[in-house]
Amino acid sequence: MADEFDVIVIGAGPAGENVVDRAVRGGLTVAVVEERLAGGECSYWACVPSKALLRPIDLAGEVSRVPGLSLGEIDVAAVLARRDEAVGRYDDSGQVRWINSVPAEFVRGHGRIDGPKRVHVTTVEGGERVLTARQAVVLATGSTAAVPPVPGLREANPWTSHEVTAATAIPERLAVVGGGVVACEMAQAMHGLGARQTTLLVRGGGLLARMEPFAGEMVADSFAEAGIEVRTHTDVARVERPEPGGKVTLHLGEEPPLEADELLVATGRKPATRDLGLASVGLKDGDYVHVDDSLRATEVPEGWLYAVGDVNGRTLLTHMGKYQARICGDVIAARARGDELPAMRDLADGYGAPQVVFTDPQVCAVGQTEESAREAGFRVRVVDYDIGSVTGAYLLGDGYRGRARAVVDEDRKVLLGVTFVGPGVAELLHSATIAVTAEVPLDRLWHAVPSFPTVSEIWLRLLETYGL
Amino acid sequence: MADEFDVIVIGAGPAGENVVDRAVRGGLTVAVVEERLAGGECSYWACVPSKALLRPIDLAGEVSRVPGLSLGEIDVAAVLARRDEAVGRYDDSGQVRWINSVPAEFVRGHGRIDGPKRVHVTTVEGGERVLTARQAVVLATGSTAAVPPVPGLREANPWTSHEVTAATAIPERLAVVGGGVVACEMAQAMHGLGARQTTLLVRGGGLLARMEPFAGEMVADSFAEAGIEVRTHTDVARVERPEPGGKVTLHLGEEPPLEADELLVATGRKPATRDLGLASVGLKDGDYVHVDDSLRATEVPEGWLYAVGDVNGRTLLTHMGKYQARICGDVIAARARGDELPAMRDLADGYGAPQVVFTDPQVCAVGQTEESAREAGFRVRVVDYDIGSVTGAYLLGDGYRGRARAVVDEDRKVLLGVTFVGPGVAELLHSATIAVTAEVPLDRLWHAVPSFPTVSEIWLRLLETYGL
Repeated sequence: MADEFDVIVIGAGPAGENVVDRAVRGGLTVAVVEERLAGGECSYWACVPSKALLRPIDLAGEVSRVPGLSLGEIDVAAVLARRDEAVGRYDDSGQVRWINSVPAEFVRGHGRIDGPKRVHVTTVEGGERVLTARQAVVLATGSTAAVPPVPGLREANPWTSHEVTAATAIPERLAVVGGGVVACEMAQAMHGLGARQTTLLVRGGGLLARMEPFAGEMVADSFAEAGIEVRTHTDVARVERPEPGGKVTLHLGEEPPLEADELLVATGRKPATRDLGLASVGLKDGDYVHVDDSLRATEVPEGWLYAVGDVNGRTLLTHMGKYQARICGDVIAARARGDELPAMRDLADGYGAPQVVFTDPQVCAVGQTEESAREAGFRVRVVDYDIGSVTGAYLLGDGYRGRARAVVDEDRKVLLGVTFVGPGVAELLHSATIAVTAEVPLDRLWHAVPSFPTVSEIWLRLLETYGL
Repeated sequence: MADEFDVIVIGAGPAGENVVDRAVRGGLTVAVVEERLAGGECSYWACVPSKALLRPIDLAGEVSRVPGLSLGEIDVAAVLARRDEAVGRYDDSGQVRWINSVPAEFVRGHGRIDGPKRVHVTTVEGGERVLTARQAVVLATGSTAAVPPVPGLREANPWTSHEVTAATAIPERLAVVGGGVVACEMAQAMHGLGARQTTLLVRGGGLLARMEPFAGEMVADSFAEAGIEVRTHTDVARVERPEPGGKVTLHLGEEPPLEADELLVATGRKPATRDLGLASVGLKDGDYVHVDDSLRATEVPEGWLYAVGDVNGRTLLTHMGKYQARICGDVIAARARGDELPAMRDLADGYGAPQVVFTDPQVCAVGQTEESAREAGFRVRVVDYDIGSVTGAYLLGDGYRGRARAVVDEDRKVLLGVTFVGPGVAELLHSATIAVTAEVPLDRLWHAVPSFPTVSEIWLRLLETYGL
């Protein structure tokens, strides 16, 4: 039967594609169903375009700190053109070719689970197709922006991450609702590209609330200097946008209303599990699909359903979705062969996923924060160090400001978490990711000598400060 | 007796300073003798000024690859001024204050060993002082540039690393003898700052001969595109410079002679052990002082002499000297207390020291190369990957070119060495340094997830290519 496969994957984003790749390598036949573009949100409307927009801003910041260099005005059209190139002009034919070459069957349409191991697809041409899976169905549908229930907000048709990363013109005045990663990154990008009045409206007390407190504080300081306004403890009560695409007015309770030319809502994500047929197998539409460390759904009998990436709610980051997907594809293939390896488990989410925020300063972290480590009951010691006092950082530019924190498990003398904030620290994170994930003892890290003069020498300073 | 100390250190460069710091922390009294500037070669005439000169060139390279940014001409005077700031205008009073604050005694003068545990100092004022050590004498005198015995070369008074990093004007035409790290970095810096005709004369077949062959090849390709000439298999037969500071003519055997305005010799280093009194304790002036893993000289009875940094010939890199110095200071203090810890040993030099070359592309490596690993008898598998095909690298700029190599010990499934070549890889090295030094198994590295989209994703590609 042509429409029977070993594995059916719903969603051809980075996570779905990695399941396809690993399952086929494991000897299985795979079909992958995608309603929109193969390559997913990340490739077209998230990580990739956002970093294409941020890179020139980041580099302009670096240049501004180095005496002897001077930069002309940023050519916004050229930046947007490179963004368009980076997203492949929203054409996924290359991705589809890659899927076919794996080889796997690419099915363009909306997939819905229709009972155990069965997926009903409404193709883009309006046809119907029923796919059945011999081994497993994998959900990899990702997430979508959550728009809070503020009166008038949805009607104002605000930008989310999806639209802001695809911007073809930069608004003069941009209001950003939210203070997390998307809010900070896109405020930075839009302001750098010409949004002279950029205002973040944050419900809580600061930016990047899930990270170490100093991270958000340092980004806020940098924003203040750059002229990006951050209003904390600010609730949006009501939104008005009389003309579609016209001026937006945000009513903020006691404060005077804020007027803007565009509005970006970046207040979190929700799983893309509506209209996925979850009810047909006893799950609830719109919920995250909970999984065990083999990425198998815990609430579905007989173990044929898996979920990878944002849709399982573990960690909403592309690289973690891809990681889960590699494990998931390997697990399904191994179970099909009957030689499952116990090493095929998602360990990394448990340690705390690595993440880079591409603001200026960059923020990156892996593992636990001090707060989360204490909450988890670890006996913790925290070591902080000013990155700006490291010679390698000074040599990157005038007035380098940065800070590092190591969270040490005092019982086992290993790192539970590391945070770096400062220009150019993004590639430094992986050293911490290895140290945390491999649980390298501190007295072994002591022999991993950072090269002079790099920013990596912060490692030496942290360990010295700890007492090594 | 005022001139008796637990430890006497000769040389107040980064290595000497670290011995001081650790020995004093260990409860010992310390005097440190320095003839020139406290802070040493690295701070004034090597790593620090060279990176201050290279940073704007490096950043200009980054900018040239990012559409939408345009750079004005480099203001050379501003770059030289920042270099002057970086070297503290060759004033070491801050360093001396730091040494005094440790606290330790700083003695400005030329120190010579004068029998066991005795150091004879000729002070800069011409006085004499004899210091005696209760525990140990530590040599930390570093190295100096080796000038090969080419007729006319020494008489031409060429630049070495010392002079080029202190340049106050950029020669129009620069000839560089050598193809190692100093030659490559300074050719890049001088060319970027205006030395329009920059020519490297290399005896061997390529640049950076101690690293993986592709490293030197990629730097050579980049130099060729930038207009920096590299002549391999080229011997300098004779040098003429009739007027001091005037034109230099290099005679090159069969080839027509090369004329230049300045000449940089960068053909290696020799230990700064002349006139150190080594003969008084049975060692040979001008030789490296061989040490064991506790940094104690192996050929001197009773174990009171130590040597750290370049002078012991282990690895001629500042950070390795500092690392050895920390161990040495700890060892001396522990031995004085009688509670020596076996963990206080130099392990890192044995793995192969990390090193960053700040050319464009940057080159960095740690551990063994394929060749050295095979020679050492390891069962080796080599994994190569094109960094330019990693999304995070593409997002850094157009036409990103880079390459990574992992050298795997097939018996233990750990990394013996890693090399990264490409723009912006310097801070990525420490991830490899940790992996190599901590001997993290490959199947554990698999769970250290690189953040998307960073260049660090090269880790994922290397491991996938290996077969994980």
